[in-house]
Amino acid sequence: MSVPVVCFVGKSGSGKTTVLEKVVAELVSRGYRVGAVKHDAHGGETDQPGKDTWRLRQAGACRVALSSPQGFVLFGTLDQELALETLVSRYLQDVDIVMAEGFKRSALPKIEVCRSERSRELLCRPEELLAVVSDFPLEVPCPQFTLEDTAGLARLLEERFLHRPSVVVRVDGREIPLKPFLQRLIAGTVRGLLAGLKGGEGRRIELDLGGPE
Amino acid sequence: MSVPVVCFVGKSGSGKTTVLEKVVAELVSRGYRVGAVKHDAHGGETDQPGKDTWRLRQAGACRVALSSPQGFVLFGTLDQELALETLVSRYLQDVDIVMAEGFKRSALPKIEVCRSERSRELLCRPEELLAVVSDFPLEVPCPQFTLEDTAGLARLLEERFLHRPSVVVRVDGREIPLKPFLQRLIAGTVRGLLAGLKGGEGRRIELDLGGPE
Repeated sequence: MSVPVVCFVGKSGSGKTTVLEKVVAELVSRGYRVGAVKHDAHGGETDQPGKDTWRLRQAGACRVALSSPQGFVLFGTLDQELALETLVSRYLQDVDIVMAEGFKRSALPKIEVCRSERSRELLCRPEELLAVVSDFPLEVPCPQFTLEDTAGLARLLEERFLHRPSVVVRVDGREIPLKPFLQRLIAGTVRGLLAGLKGGEGRRIELDLGGPE
Repeated sequence: MSVPVVCFVGKSGSGKTTVLEKVVAELVSRGYRVGAVKHDAHGGETDQPGKDTWRLRQAGACRVALSSPQGFVLFGTLDQELALETLVSRYLQDVDIVMAEGFKRSALPKIEVCRSERSRELLCRPEELLAVVSDFPLEVPCPQFTLEDTAGLARLLEERFLHRPSVVVRVDGREIPLKPFLQRLIAGTVRGLLAGLKGGEGRRIELDLGGPE
């Protein structure tokens, strides 16, 4: 699993979704492609009875996709829940980072959301947390953010998980800063150009365009 | 794209979904894992406003998954529709066959559904069709099935796309017939057993258990 995953945990009613919503928007505004996974213990029905997707699932199709110009929806029927790692490695490889809600027993990096109105006690042991987001000071050995400090939280995620440029462009010996989507665009274009060539399928590609003609 | 895909095409109101529903159920009862893809030109909203998945998508997450013990739902936001081939190769690799509804311009194998009540004319040229399902006789160079002959249609799909056993078991030199799910179970178990061994990750695995001890 190459895409970084961060789990936002916390007691129910602590405001996880609201924090997640804000940090997702912040990371998107910084140019990242963000994926999200929400845990749903009850398995409530998202599909609507009578719809064609629902009918095909009722007929026994274990994977049903609905495809439109604006996007797609994929329904999967399972005998047992997929591990978060499996879900991400199968279905969420085309994003820069995955923000998960729940999965408190996972060994993946965790950030706990804690609101005094709900509870002043943490759900997780402080030493297993990457950060805490709360509306009151806690004695924890990790970075702590207020509920409003979305920029601070996004900066932490950026520093820890997103500063790994895969495409480096140097002009006259000086590196040019590139946002992830531009890195992907350049990488995709160059790899696409090389794809038909014998020997063009390698993992690491270096280009030297030389100087002006 | 290794999973076979068949497109069920036909004029709107010809009964594509009903035919698809029946043939999916028939293939599932024969032990196959079936995936389905429905084309939705209008891109109607499947998610429900206010739900957490909807909120995270509104915040800009381009992939949002909901995971439960019974299954998962993955929402993807796109700038342009994925080609059917891309959708299948990214998201539907864990089934034996994919039945698609629509995609009449695709170069994939097509079966046209035609009901006299709706129209007596085919949407596609007969020579590009794998089969026709209709309630009246048509002069076509491909196999033709009545709307009720689900078993016949399933048999055609089985013969054309599903008779490719990847696991062969011979007992005293005689091959034993194995349903696909059993082939997958055997293959998964044996590969799992060998996975930890040096050299055990090969693609083709042959086992010879010898005779009784």
